[in-house]
Amino acid sequence: MQGEELGTAPGPLRELLRIPEGTRVDLSSYAADATPGGPADKAAGVLDTARMGERLADLQERLYAASTADDRRRVLLVLQGMDTSGKGGTVKHVIGLFNPSGCRIKAFKTPTPEEQSHFFLWRIMRELPLPGEIGIFDRSHYEDVLIARVHDLVPRSQLGRRYGKINHFEQTLADDGVTVIKCFLHISYDQQRRRLLERLDNPDKHWKFSTGDITERALWPAYKEAYEIALERCSTAEAPWYLIPADRKWYRNWAISKLLLEHLTALDPRYPAADFDVEESRRLLLQGG
Amino acid sequence: MQGEELGTAPGPLRELLRIPEGTRVDLSSYAADATPGGPADKAAGVLDTARMGERLADLQERLYAASTADDRRRVLLVLQGMDTSGKGGTVKHVIGLFNPSGCRIKAFKTPTPEEQSHFFLWRIMRELPLPGEIGIFDRSHYEDVLIARVHDLVPRSQLGRRYGKINHFEQTLADDGVTVIKCFLHISYDQQRRRLLERLDNPDKHWKFSTGDITERALWPAYKEAYEIALERCSTAEAPWYLIPADRKWYRNWAISKLLLEHLTALDPRYPAADFDVEESRRLLLQGG
Repeated sequence: MQGEELGTAPGPLRELLRIPEGTRVDLSSYAADATPGGPADKAAGVLDTARMGERLADLQERLYAASTADDRRRVLLVLQGMDTSGKGGTVKHVIGLFNPSGCRIKAFKTPTPEEQSHFFLWRIMRELPLPGEIGIFDRSHYEDVLIARVHDLVPRSQLGRRYGKINHFEQTLADDGVTVIKCFLHISYDQQRRRLLERLDNPDKHWKFSTGDITERALWPAYKEAYEIALERCSTAEAPWYLIPADRKWYRNWAISKLLLEHLTALDPRYPAADFDVEESRRLLLQGG
Repeated sequence: MQGEELGTAPGPLRELLRIPEGTRVDLSSYAADATPGGPADKAAGVLDTARMGERLADLQERLYAASTADDRRRVLLVLQGMDTSGKGGTVKHVIGLFNPSGCRIKAFKTPTPEEQSHFFLWRIMRELPLPGEIGIFDRSHYEDVLIARVHDLVPRSQLGRRYGKINHFEQTLADDGVTVIKCFLHISYDQQRRRLLERLDNPDKHWKFSTGDITERALWPAYKEAYEIALERCSTAEAPWYLIPADRKWYRNWAISKLLLEHLTALDPRYPAADFDVEESRRLLLQGG
């Protein structure tokens, strides 16, 4: 790893933010406004994130280029978190650093009747990134053990089996060359209220608000528990969860950019060698006029 | 229009670059290194393009927000041009100015067997933008009257009917609220050689090159004629073609950004009004703790 040149973290950020496999998670014990391994302040964080942009785009191009020579590797960034935790903002500010043509972004909403008539992973599989791409899920198959648990959408026995199915699915992805990076955007209850009030205070943001946000907020303890269980059962060696303190938007953007940079750097994708005669092609071009 | 504040063009750029309906097109008569209506030089062009970014992203958000209140309007940018004309570069540099979550980008390749077994517009329809989105086609249904014509992939009689089918299809899109912006990236034969040689000179760009590029280049006159016919027959009032001189990458990026800005400004999308009681929601949030 290149921790010393990638920012201010003493070691890889992914070690710092990763939820160890099988660990009991108590979200109350994580400060949502912390900045573990991060730059000193917002100004430094914003600058460092912007600076990472060029390297992220360069690595993304290499990953895409490699896919043209049968390198199947790709990345899948999964974003989960309570309402207002910044999933959309992450796509805008972090994924906005990449070349959009190599990004496959999907925001999962309430399942359609067609989606509901299938196995819960069916709609997920259809949106997976192709080799060379960066896939981004704004919400994901985890909704099927989060909102599904909180609202008792399926019997508990069926819910219980979903964790194993998810782990099996993600293992299959990893075996197929997908680097799965799952980020839980951790905000505090107070911060959510501030963000919802901001939306109410600004008429240009009213469209982002619905009264359902308030009824869901009342279920905060149940969602917290559902997240704790999912983070505990589904943070695996092949597809770990990262806990991103997200009360500070600049830290959230910095940390996710850095996680992507660390993973892409480790993948070390290479431009493929020419599969044609370069000199002959040059000659043909020059003589062709 | 707001020509005076949108850049240096005396009038709307879309009037300047638009190919009038039914006009006979002779591409030789358009200088590919021209900068019609553009800034004085590259530095000014790059700066002006960056400056447009904030307004483009703002208008995009408004368009998306409006779609949540049943405004069906959306934009479809179609990019066509010879190899190396900069379709991919446009996506990277122009579409990179937008929020990626609201962009639906599709690069059309050689049709798959499944796609070939359908009507030629079938695969196109599946990739159309949803209300509120900016759709971007890197190549499009026009390939079916370009490469299909040059390589005689279909009988001439069948080819001849495709122009009308395309116009009918695009009229249907316009009727459904799609603003269709078709950009032909016009490069010179010499500029294509320079760009292909650049790819050969840089091992990191070898993956972008194939010897097929040279055999296709030998068909330049046939492609030129195919483009001229398509531009003449399919530049309609509802879905006009814009001819973008593209030898200068900075001008290409500036011009397409400005076309998008002019169209989005004309659409004037509005944030929807709240469909809930703002004061009541604020009260509930504050009392909920």
